[in-house]
Amino acid sequence: MKFSELVAKLSAQNNSLQTNPDCNPEITYLASLEEAEANSLSYIEGGKYASWVNNTKASALILPEDVTLQQKATARGIAWLATPNPRLTFAQALNLFYQPFKPQPQIHPTAVIAEGVELGENVSIGAHVVIERGVKIGNDVCIFPNVVIYPQVVIGDRTIIHSNVTIEERTQIGADCIIHSGAVIGGEGFGFVPTPEGWYKMPQSGYVILEDGVEIGCNTTVDRPAVGVTRIGKNTKLDNLVHVGHNVIIGDNCILAAQVGLAGGVRIGNRVILAGQVGVANQVQIGDGAVASAQTGIHNDVKPGEVVSGSPAVSNKLYLKASAIYKKLPEIYETFKKLKKNL
Amino acid sequence: MKFSELVAKLSAQNNSLQTNPDCNPEITYLASLEEAEANSLSYIEGGKYASWVNNTKASALILPEDVTLQQKATARGIAWLATPNPRLTFAQALNLFYQPFKPQPQIHPTAVIAEGVELGENVSIGAHVVIERGVKIGNDVCIFPNVVIYPQVVIGDRTIIHSNVTIEERTQIGADCIIHSGAVIGGEGFGFVPTPEGWYKMPQSGYVILEDGVEIGCNTTVDRPAVGVTRIGKNTKLDNLVHVGHNVIIGDNCILAAQVGLAGGVRIGNRVILAGQVGVANQVQIGDGAVASAQTGIHNDVKPGEVVSGSPAVSNKLYLKASAIYKKLPEIYETFKKLKKNL
Amino acid sequence: MKFSELVAKLSAQNNSLQTNPDCNPEITYLASLEEAEANSLSYIEGGKYASWVNNTKASALILPEDVTLQQKATARGIAWLATPNPRLTFAQALNLFYQPFKPQPQIHPTAVIAEGVELGENVSIGAHVVIERGVKIGNDVCIFPNVVIYPQVVIGDRTIIHSNVTIEERTQIGADCIIHSGAVIGGEGFGFVPTPEGWYKMPQSGYVILEDGVEIGCNTTVDRPAVGVTRIGKNTKLDNLVHVGHNVIIGDNCILAAQVGLAGGVRIGNRVILAGQVGVANQVQIGDGAVASAQTGIHNDVKPGEVVSGSPAVSNKLYLKASAIYKKLPEIYETFKKLKKNL
Repeated sequence: MKFSELVAKLSAQNNSLQTNPDCNPEITYLASLEEAEANSLSYIEGGKYASWVNNTKASALILPEDVTLQQKATARGIAWLATPNPRLTFAQALNLFYQPFKPQPQIHPTAVIAEGVELGENVSIGAHVVIERGVKIGNDVCIFPNVVIYPQVVIGDRTIIHSNVTIEERTQIGADCIIHSGAVIGGEGFGFVPTPEGWYKMPQSGYVILEDGVEIGCNTTVDRPAVGVTRIGKNTKLDNLVHVGHNVIIGDNCILAAQVGLAGGVRIGNRVILAGQVGVANQVQIGDGAVASAQTGIHNDVKPGEVVSGSPAVSNKLYLKASAIYKKLPEIYETFKKLKKNL
Repeated sequence: MKFSELVAKLSAQNNSLQTNPDCNPEITYLASLEEAEANSLSYIEGGKYASWVNNTKASALILPEDVTLQQKATARGIAWLATPNPRLTFAQALNLFYQPFKPQPQIHPTAVIAEGVELGENVSIGAHVVIERGVKIGNDVCIFPNVVIYPQVVIGDRTIIHSNVTIEERTQIGADCIIHSGAVIGGEGFGFVPTPEGWYKMPQSGYVILEDGVEIGCNTTVDRPAVGVTRIGKNTKLDNLVHVGHNVIIGDNCILAAQVGLAGGVRIGNRVILAGQVGVANQVQIGDGAVASAQTGIHNDVKPGEVVSGSPAVSNKLYLKASAIYKKLPEIYETFKKLKKNL
Repeated sequence: MKFSELVAKLSAQNNSLQTNPDCNPEITYLASLEEAEANSLSYIEGGKYASWVNNTKASALILPEDVTLQQKATARGIAWLATPNPRLTFAQALNLFYQPFKPQPQIHPTAVIAEGVELGENVSIGAHVVIERGVKIGNDVCIFPNVVIYPQVVIGDRTIIHSNVTIEERTQIGADCIIHSGAVIGGEGFGFVPTPEGWYKMPQSGYVILEDGVEIGCNTTVDRPAVGVTRIGKNTKLDNLVHVGHNVIIGDNCILAAQVGLAGGVRIGNRVILAGQVGVANQVQIGDGAVASAQTGIHNDVKPGEVVSGSPAVSNKLYLKASAIYKKLPEIYETFKKLKKNL
C-alpha cells in the first residue's frame, strides 16, 4: 500500500502522527533496519540504532520524536512517521501486512469429540484432535491438529491452541489466550511424600487456571496441584520451555522468558519480569514489578520493584559490583597472601 | 463422608491413629490450610505452619503427634487425627476422595496398531495412538490419545502413558510407571565424532530401560545410547523438562526436579535428590543419598550422602559461607585497597 | 561377521588400517569396554581408558596408533585394528551393524494432506500426520506419525522428522536434516511491546531456515521472528530441550548441548560449542570456534576461539582461578578480618 495510506490507518490507532509530506513510496513489506530494501518499512527506536538512519535501505521509517533523526531521513529521501513508541507503531503496522496462519472454522471429520462436549460458534477443531467428555469450548476458538483435551476443561472465546498441545483435566483457560505447540497445561504436580518404604505419590486433585490474554510458549509445562489451583493472571506471557510448578500463583502482565523454572507454591505479583533460565525455589514470594536477570537463582522473597541477579540472588546493584570484583579474585589473592605474611 | 468413617478407612493403612472423639463433621473435600472452608479436611506438618491451627477454617485437621496443637484444635471445635507423618496421611486421605482421569479399557477404532503387537488384558489404547510392530503391552496398561510407540517397545502392567508422548525403538518400560504428556523416551543420544570434514554421527543402537514405578514428567527427554543402555531405577521420579543423556544410569528412589540436565554417562546412586535446574557433566558419578540444591553445576564426583551447591559445586556448608562473603565483596574490596596501599 | 570382513569394509572408508593378522573372531555386536563380552567389538581412545585393554572381555578392539596398547591386546588374544581416530572408526563399524528404525515409504491412509501439497519420490508419511496447503516435501523424506506441518513449509531431500513434531508456517528445512520427537520449529517468537495498557503482541511474520544436515533434539524449540529469519547453519547439531529465540543466526558445524537457551537476535559463528544449560543474552555475538562450558551465562560478545565459563561469563582460565579462590573465601575472610583490625 502507499505510505500515506499506511499512515492513515495507523493514525486511527495513534494520536497526531508526524510525517514528512513530500515522500510517498509504495510499501510492500516490513523489515529490520539491516535487511530492509526498497519498498520496505522499518523502525528506529533511538540509542545504538540511531545511526542506521544513515545507511538503511528502507523506503520508509518509523522514527521517535527526534528532529535530528527526522531531518536525516528527509535528507536521504526516506519517508517517515514519528511516534512516541516506534516499536509499538511498527507492531501495529505489521498487523496491517500480516496475519498468522489460522485454519478456517470447521470440525475436521477425523477429530474425536466426546458426546456432550459444548462447542461455541465459529470454532475450528483440527484433524485428529481429541476432546474428552464435559469440555466447554467458547466462540471463535481455534484448536490446531493433534491437540488432546482431557475431561472438564473450559476454554474461553477466541483462544488459540496450537498443535500437539495437551490440556489435562479440569483446566480453565480464559478468553484470548494462545497456547503454543507442544505445551502441556494441567499435568500432575510433582509431589511425593518420603516414607521408609519409598516415595508415596501425592494425588493431584487441583487444577490450572489461565486467565484472559495469557500466552504459553512452545513445550512449556504448567502443573496442577494436590489441592487448590495453579493460576496465571491476565495478560501474563510465558516463553518456551518454562516450568510452572503446582500451586504457583502468577499475577497479571508478567513476562517469563524461556526456560524459567518455578518450584511449587511460588507467588509472583503483577508486572514481574523474569529473564531466561531464572529459577525460583519453593514458596518464594516475588513482589509487583520485580525483575530478575537471566539465570538468577531466587531462594528468598523479593520485594516489589526490586531488581535481582546472581545465584543465590542479590540486588542487581550489588551483583554488578561483586561480579566485577570476582574477576579480580586471582590478583586480589596474590596481594592477600603477601598481606597475610605480614600479619 | 463422616470424619469418623474417614478415620476408620485411614486406620486400615496406619497404626493407632489418635483422634478427638467428640467431633464428627461431614468431610466433602480436602484443601490447603489457607483455602480450607467448612466441611474440608486439611493438615499441619508443624514448624511454620503450626500457627494455622488458630485461624484455618477447615472442619478437620491431620495433625502431628503434638499435644499442644491437638488441644488448640479441640478448643476451636476442629476434628483432628494425629499421625507421625501428617503429609502422608493427607495423601492417603486424598486418594479416598479423588482419582485422576483414566479412560475406560478399550482399543479406540482410530488407533493404528501393527500386526503382531501383543496387548495384555484390560488395556486402554486411546484415539490416534500409533503402535509399531513387535511391541508388547502388559495388562491394565493405559495409553492416552495421540501417543506414538516405535518398534520392539515393551510396556509393563498398569503403566500409564499420557498424551502426545513418543516412545522410541526398543525402550523397555516396567510395571506401574507413569509417563506424563509430551515426554520422549528412547530418542537418539547426542553423539557426534569430530572429523576434519565435520561432525560424524555416532549411531545410537542402545536402548532405554525404565524400571518399575518410574515416573517421567511432562516434556522430559530420556535418550538412548550408542551401545548399551540408559537406565532409570525403580521408583525414581523425574519432574518436567528434565534431560537424561545417553548411557546415564540412575539408581532407585531418586528425585530429579524440573529442568535438571544429565550429560552422557552420568552415574547416580540410590535415593539421590537433585533440585531444579541442576546440571551434571559427562561421566560424573554421584553416590547414594547425595543431594544437590537448585542450579548446582556438578563437574566432579559427589560422595554418598554429600550435600552440594553452587556452580561449580562445592559442599553446601562451604557454599553457604562463601556466598555470604560474596555479598560482602564490595566492602571487602574497599578495605583491601587500603591494606594494599600499606603493603 | 568375521573380524577380517569387518576390517575389509572399514578399510574402504579409511586409509591403511593396521591389524593383528593372527586373530579373526566372529563379531556379533558392538559394546562399551565395560559391557563387552565374547564376540563383541569395542574401542579404546587412550588416556584413562587405556588400562581397559587389560580386562575388557571384548573379542576385538579398535585401538589408537599406540604400539604398547596393540602389544597388550595381542598378548591377551584380542583381535585389533588401529586407526588415528578410534571413536570415528567405531561409529563407522556401528553403521555396519545397526540402522535406526525407519518406516517404509508409503502415504498412510490416515494422514491428512491438503490439496496441492508437493510430495517427492519415495516419501514416507506416517499415520495421523497433518500437512497443510502449499507444503513441498523432497525425495526420500520420512515423516513419522502424528507430525503436524503448517502451510508453506519446504522440506529437503532425505530429511527425517520424528513423531509429535510441529513445523510451523513457512519454515524451510534443508536436505539430510533430522528433527527429533516433540520439537517445535517456527513457533512465534516471544515479542511484546510494553505500553501503558499492558503488553502489545508483536506479530511474528518471519520464518525459520534450517540448512542442510542440521539436527534438532527432542522437544527443542526454534522460534520465528517478527521480520526476517531465524537461521541454523549447515551441519549444526542441537541437543534436547534447547531454546533458539527469534532472529538468532547460528553458523555451520556448531554443537549446542541440552537445555541451552539463546535469546533473541543472538549471532553465533561457525564451529561454536555451547555445553549444557548455557544461556546467551539478547543480541550477543559469539565468534567462530568459541566454546562455553556448562551453565555459562553469556551477556557480552565472545571473540573467535575464546573459551568462556561462569555466569557472568569470563575466560575459562580466569574462571578456573577465581572459582578455586572462591572456595577459600571463608578462610580468606577470617584472615582479612584480622588484617582489617590492624588497619
